Amino acid sequence: MSLEHFFLTRKRTEDFCKPLSVEDYTPQIALHASPMKWQLGHTTWFFETFILNKYQKDYKIFNKSFSFLFNSYYNNIGDRLSRDNRGVLTRPSVEDVYAYRKYVDDEIELFFNQNDDDETNALLEIGINHEEQHQELMITDLKLLFFNHPFKTQYKPNGSLLEDSIDNEESKWITIEEGIYNIGFKGKGFSYDNEHGQHKVYLQQFQIGKNYVTNDEYIAFINDGGYNRFELWLDEGWSWVKENNIKHPLYWDYKDNKWYQFTLGGVEIINPKSILGHINFYEAEAFARWKGMRLPTEFEWEIASKHFNWGKRWEWTNSAYLPYPGFKTADGALGEYNGKFMINTMVLRGGSVATSPNHSRNTYRNFFHPHYRWQYSGIRLAK
Amino acid sequence: MSLEHFFLTRKRTEDFCKPLSVEDYTPQIALHASPMKWQLGHTTWFFETFILNKYQKDYKIFNKSFSFLFNSYYNNIGDRLSRDNRGVLTRPSVEDVYAYRKYVDDEIELFFNQNDDDETNALLEIGINHEEQHQELMITDLKLLFFNHPFKTQYKPNGSLLEDSIDNEESKWITIEEGIYNIGFKGKGFSYDNEHGQHKVYLQQFQIGKNYVTNDEYIAFINDGGYNRFELWLDEGWSWVKENNIKHPLYWDYKDNKWYQFTLGGVEIINPKSILGHINFYEAEAFARWKGMRLPTEFEWEIASKHFNWGKRWEWTNSAYLPYPGFKTADGALGEYNGKFMINTMVLRGGSVATSPNHSRNTYRNFFHPHYRWQYSGIRLAK
Amino acid sequence: MSLEHFFLTRKRTEDFCKPLSVEDYTPQIALHASPMKWQLGHTTWFFETFILNKYQKDYKIFNKSFSFLFNSYYNNIGDRLSRDNRGVLTRPSVEDVYAYRKYVDDEIELFFNQNDDDETNALLEIGINHEEQHQELMITDLKLLFFNHPFKTQYKPNGSLLEDSIDNEESKWITIEEGIYNIGFKGKGFSYDNEHGQHKVYLQQFQIGKNYVTNDEYIAFINDGGYNRFELWLDEGWSWVKENNIKHPLYWDYKDNKWYQFTLGGVEIINPKSILGHINFYEAEAFARWKGMRLPTEFEWEIASKHFNWGKRWEWTNSAYLPYPGFKTADGALGEYNGKFMINTMVLRGGSVATSPNHSRNTYRNFFHPHYRWQYSGIRLAK
Amino acid sequence: MSLEHFFLTRKRTEDFCKPLSVEDYTPQIALHASPMKWQLGHTTWFFETFILNKYQKDYKIFNKSFSFLFNSYYNNIGDRLSRDNRGVLTRPSVEDVYAYRKYVDDEIELFFNQNDDDETNALLEIGINHEEQHQELMITDLKLLFFNHPFKTQYKPNGSLLEDSIDNEESKWITIEEGIYNIGFKGKGFSYDNEHGQHKVYLQQFQIGKNYVTNDEYIAFINDGGYNRFELWLDEGWSWVKENNIKHPLYWDYKDNKWYQFTLGGVEIINPKSILGHINFYEAEAFARWKGMRLPTEFEWEIASKHFNWGKRWEWTNSAYLPYPGFKTADGALGEYNGKFMINTMVLRGGSVATSPNHSRNTYRNFFHPHYRWQYSGIRLAK
Repeated sequence: MSLEHFFLTRKRTEDFCKPLSVEDYTPQIALHASPMKWQLGHTTWFFETFILNKYQKDYKIFNKSFSFLFNSYYNNIGDRLSRDNRGVLTRPSVEDVYAYRKYVDDEIELFFNQNDDDETNALLEIGINHEEQHQELMITDLKLLFFNHPFKTQYKPNGSLLEDSIDNEESKWITIEEGIYNIGFKGKGFSYDNEHGQHKVYLQQFQIGKNYVTNDEYIAFINDGGYNRFELWLDEGWSWVKENNIKHPLYWDYKDNKWYQFTLGGVEIINPKSILGHINFYEAEAFARWKGMRLPTEFEWEIASKHFNWGKRWEWTNSAYLPYPGFKTADGALGEYNGKFMINTMVLRGGSVATSPNHSRNTYRNFFHPHYRWQYSGIRLAK
Repeated sequence: MSLEHFFLTRKRTEDFCKPLSVEDYTPQIALHASPMKWQLGHTTWFFETFILNKYQKDYKIFNKSFSFLFNSYYNNIGDRLSRDNRGVLTRPSVEDVYAYRKYVDDEIELFFNQNDDDETNALLEIGINHEEQHQELMITDLKLLFFNHPFKTQYKPNGSLLEDSIDNEESKWITIEEGIYNIGFKGKGFSYDNEHGQHKVYLQQFQIGKNYVTNDEYIAFINDGGYNRFELWLDEGWSWVKENNIKHPLYWDYKDNKWYQFTLGGVEIINPKSILGHINFYEAEAFARWKGMRLPTEFEWEIASKHFNWGKRWEWTNSAYLPYPGFKTADGALGEYNGKFMINTMVLRGGSVATSPNHSRNTYRNFFHPHYRWQYSGIRLAK
Repeated sequence: MSLEHFFLTRKRTEDFCKPLSVEDYTPQIALHASPMKWQLGHTTWFFETFILNKYQKDYKIFNKSFSFLFNSYYNNIGDRLSRDNRGVLTRPSVEDVYAYRKYVDDEIELFFNQNDDDETNALLEIGINHEEQHQELMITDLKLLFFNHPFKTQYKPNGSLLEDSIDNEESKWITIEEGIYNIGFKGKGFSYDNEHGQHKVYLQQFQIGKNYVTNDEYIAFINDGGYNRFELWLDEGWSWVKENNIKHPLYWDYKDNKWYQFTLGGVEIINPKSILGHINFYEAEAFARWKGMRLPTEFEWEIASKHFNWGKRWEWTNSAYLPYPGFKTADGALGEYNGKFMINTMVLRGGSVATSPNHSRNTYRNFFHPHYRWQYSGIRLAK
Repeated sequence: MSLEHFFLTRKRTEDFCKPLSVEDYTPQIALHASPMKWQLGHTTWFFETFILNKYQKDYKIFNKSFSFLFNSYYNNIGDRLSRDNRGVLTRPSVEDVYAYRKYVDDEIELFFNQNDDDETNALLEIGINHEEQHQELMITDLKLLFFNHPFKTQYKPNGSLLEDSIDNEESKWITIEEGIYNIGFKGKGFSYDNEHGQHKVYLQQFQIGKNYVTNDEYIAFINDGGYNRFELWLDEGWSWVKENNIKHPLYWDYKDNKWYQFTLGGVEIINPKSILGHINFYEAEAFARWKGMRLPTEFEWEIASKHFNWGKRWEWTNSAYLPYPGFKTADGALGEYNGKFMINTMVLRGGSVATSPNHSRNTYRNFFHPHYRWQYSGIRLAK
């Protein structure tokens, strides 16, 4: 079953590339985004490095230089291409990278057929989850790339159907009582180290929205001078607004008295009842303050999540990304996966339209710096 | 009694200036530090703006332009000198700023004698606490200024006696049991809005050090390659080490096989048994990891603080500076005091040799960006 | 005859692309370099804009958006893609750009056959010369691109044969007598506005080298501490050396006691007798000072040029790029070709192995900022 | 006589300081400007280093550390305070710097009385000329400092009388015939190495303005959209205008339909008939182009200078600052005086209201980067 999951995942990645021209694979549009070619190689390198090269006897590395090119941030593995240089990879060709994928896929199949045990399944699961994470980045990075093309190229026809979810239920509030609750992952199935260590937290009574904030609610914030009123913003948020002359969410544009947004299908008129996305923590926090409310903590979110639907937008919480009690970084390279980013980042909970199916869960801790907007990130209010 | 406290505070500030030449008052040595002249004016402006100008009938402002010059970050009050321009204030003269202080002091006395009620005392108390906070910054900013002078000028003879505290008790561990605890300020006496809203938290069992980490313990970390081992550092911490070529704490220097440090009394040999200071969060966190331990959370620290001595170094906690449940920013300018900095900063607890006497308490929440080192900041370990 | 020249030029450009993969056409490796795709489009746009669109009745523009994409720096023509954004052009595809070239070539042929008069020939000549200039940039920009690839990819096998010219004649000096000389272009054939206005200059007697400076002469400069001795450098040159930690020419590398250089054919051992290249003005000037000599002025070079061979390396002169007496910027867009760069640039004379055949002449004034090294630029000494 | 000149010069420098408060001496307002305290020390250090320390037997240096503090750019002399750190010198005190001046003055007097020979006079003359150059910088740097103070402090009452020269003669043109002319200094009296080497140049016939360009002529340029028309500007000039959002000369301001300028006496209404100042090369060049004229070369200026009055504004020429034929950098530290700046700078000729009396001459070559505006720099047109 896991091997089937492996192949489904690998195929899903490649399916994302179908609308691309050969030339679309190479450019790096921003330091925090990666070229599709690099991501195709990197997700493959992950399987090769952490499974084949480590456990498969006599495994012959596809191409030694790829370890340098496709290592992301694992200091343990050795030297690597610096992050700001990923856009220079005209070679290897897209074709070669697909050949690399094929080679590793075949070897993984071979290895799995020889070693269908729990340990192998666990390793495979990490690699699959890693690739699923990158699938989300592929979508968001491609969207950013096409947006920055002089002509705001579409990713594919009707691409907006993939992302522009309607959420027009009546707004309601869910109340959670004060008390002790269990937080963190426990049980079977895959999970990351940063969600381990189930532990008790004490929560005060709170209310949380049943629905996401929608575009028209955010337009009301804009129309009320939201981007011009310092008192609504964190100090750093206000500096960010001023320095970058921000007037609306990423991908939005206002002309001829109408709001437009760039989508995977090109520029479209904004649907006011659809769920707000592509805002950063500063915007989420300012919006909540303007409403006289606040963002939930990640603990509140986790406890309340059984009572509402989620998964269309990553939801900014007002929790910093920090270790759970007893969190311990694993030895070796995989220990670099999560723990070393536990500073100056905020937790997002839930999942988005770009998240791979079944990849998320209500204990999942996503995290980004508070200024980033290129993810499908939105708001759920608390009070 | 409060008026007496007021005059003591005002005098204490001016006593700090006795070792200074007229020219020492003006330069701004770093964006995050302020000139002494500006601080003398700003703390005075605070009393003038939030008490006299608001509540004293027919109060005549000393000099209208000072509101522009000496406003720090209160958008509510109006335009202000930009932070990076505080070093240009050759005018008003030091003498004029002292005249400003005298004028406001006299007016406050007059006002207080007319209105010795609870409300006036409360206002005065905020102003005093504000000035006490700046007293600490005056010391740390002057230290940075003199350190950056080509000749590492001393602040005053024997200045190191003010800061270089010995802490050579035997190391011990305090154990705190799992359970529900109350966190936050409750009761009489002054406190800031950010520590209000006493609330329950659930703590897992933990142990915390009775003593501060000392210089020789940190030297062992350095000697063990602490600054060269990526696996000990948060990702941003490692970038900070590499980009700035960091090899030791701020103010330290190594020559002829000995460690030296710059103190308020000039450069001196480091006392190995003295308490480590002037490190940032990245260094504190890396040291703890190297020890196989961790930093306490601010909640752990607060609960454990009755069981140990504190007050010589601000102690980095592994808690991000975020609002307590029910935290509400006050209306108007004083609402800008604390809340708007609740992002990308970490909480420090305790107090330091530079903290004004009686200014701190065990619910006090100090906060700085994780890269700053110019405060007297140190480490207490937990596990 | 000119139409034949046109087609030869167009073909020569495309021949340069034969060793490229589709993906090599897109990245912009530095702000001062342009992607091959952009250059293919831009040289075509030049013919379309300044000939077809202006003079061909009912000419139908190939694609309106291309005017935005492929305008380089002609403010007169209107808005354009900002220079730092040329690397984002994954669309149009390489195929589309070739189709654009074909379309314009066909239209030019048609136009020329209808209008084979002097004016048309003159227009064509400008476009051809413009494309020839870009041919040189294509070579130098591709070299920089491949050099910056993690594996220093070769442009093509034996590529070094294209550039690594041997110049091992015995060194000799040519003496030119004091007197009045004529400078500037006069006569038939193509020339640029910046070389027009033949005029008299008075030259003092001087001597100039018959040969270029060779690699081994420059190695002697390095070995004598050339990059460590401030007294040999202009103040800005010395800052450039220190800030960039320069120790040798661009493309050079020293390992295992041998000097290597990156060439169009990959990394090769340096031939000591070959002509030095890829140095900037600062290096040329420092080398000359180290020799106790100097660089010639552009006037000295022009007068002496009948007495030596040139054309393998652009030769830095000690003349700033400034207008000749009576220089007048032409009206309209073509007036932006040369004149507006007459500040902070130095004149190079001659030509290089990358210069298109017959493109240069001894009155030709090439110019670059003094810090650039990616052209085939070398030294001829004077005294 | 020279000793008298020495004392007059030294006194003139100190007279400039009379309007200053102690605190005005320290700040460095821009990287290209220096604090008055530093300039007082540096001009003194020059005499101490190049005369007393070199030639006076048993000379006792006033304070060893001053050599580090007050060396400007002489690599030959050794380590020095980095240029961006001159604003940190709260110590030595202003008083100490005056004591340093007194000490060196006394020693120079002693030395001169012992050695009143030609060589000593020559050395003294260099030092005097050096200090005269700094006197001009003192004025321009103080003006910049006071301009940047939040309240645009005046240097002294009626300070504008020092600078705001009227030049309302009728505009006339002087014609110089084509031919060979001698350029460069020859004869007795002081001069710098960069003007030595008198040599012949061939000039085409040209006309040059008898008068400076006045404020109202420049206002006409502004009103005609001068700062919005790319076609009037050099490419770098246009970038400078756009990036810095330039709309008028430095120190100018437009409000309530009137033009104001900051002067040494504070902000005043602009006198339209007074001479334009504080513009950079880009502005001078654009203005000339707008007029359909051009800037003179430095050679044209030198030859024509006998026919007009000059000395109120430095006049931008269209000549780059480059060596005269036979120019040779002197050995040792004084060789760093001029030659090493011969790149990316343009020559200004004449002198200004801030130039020390008798300091200039018609062969004097001043030079600055083309973007600087803080000098009293203006325009004389040629055609």
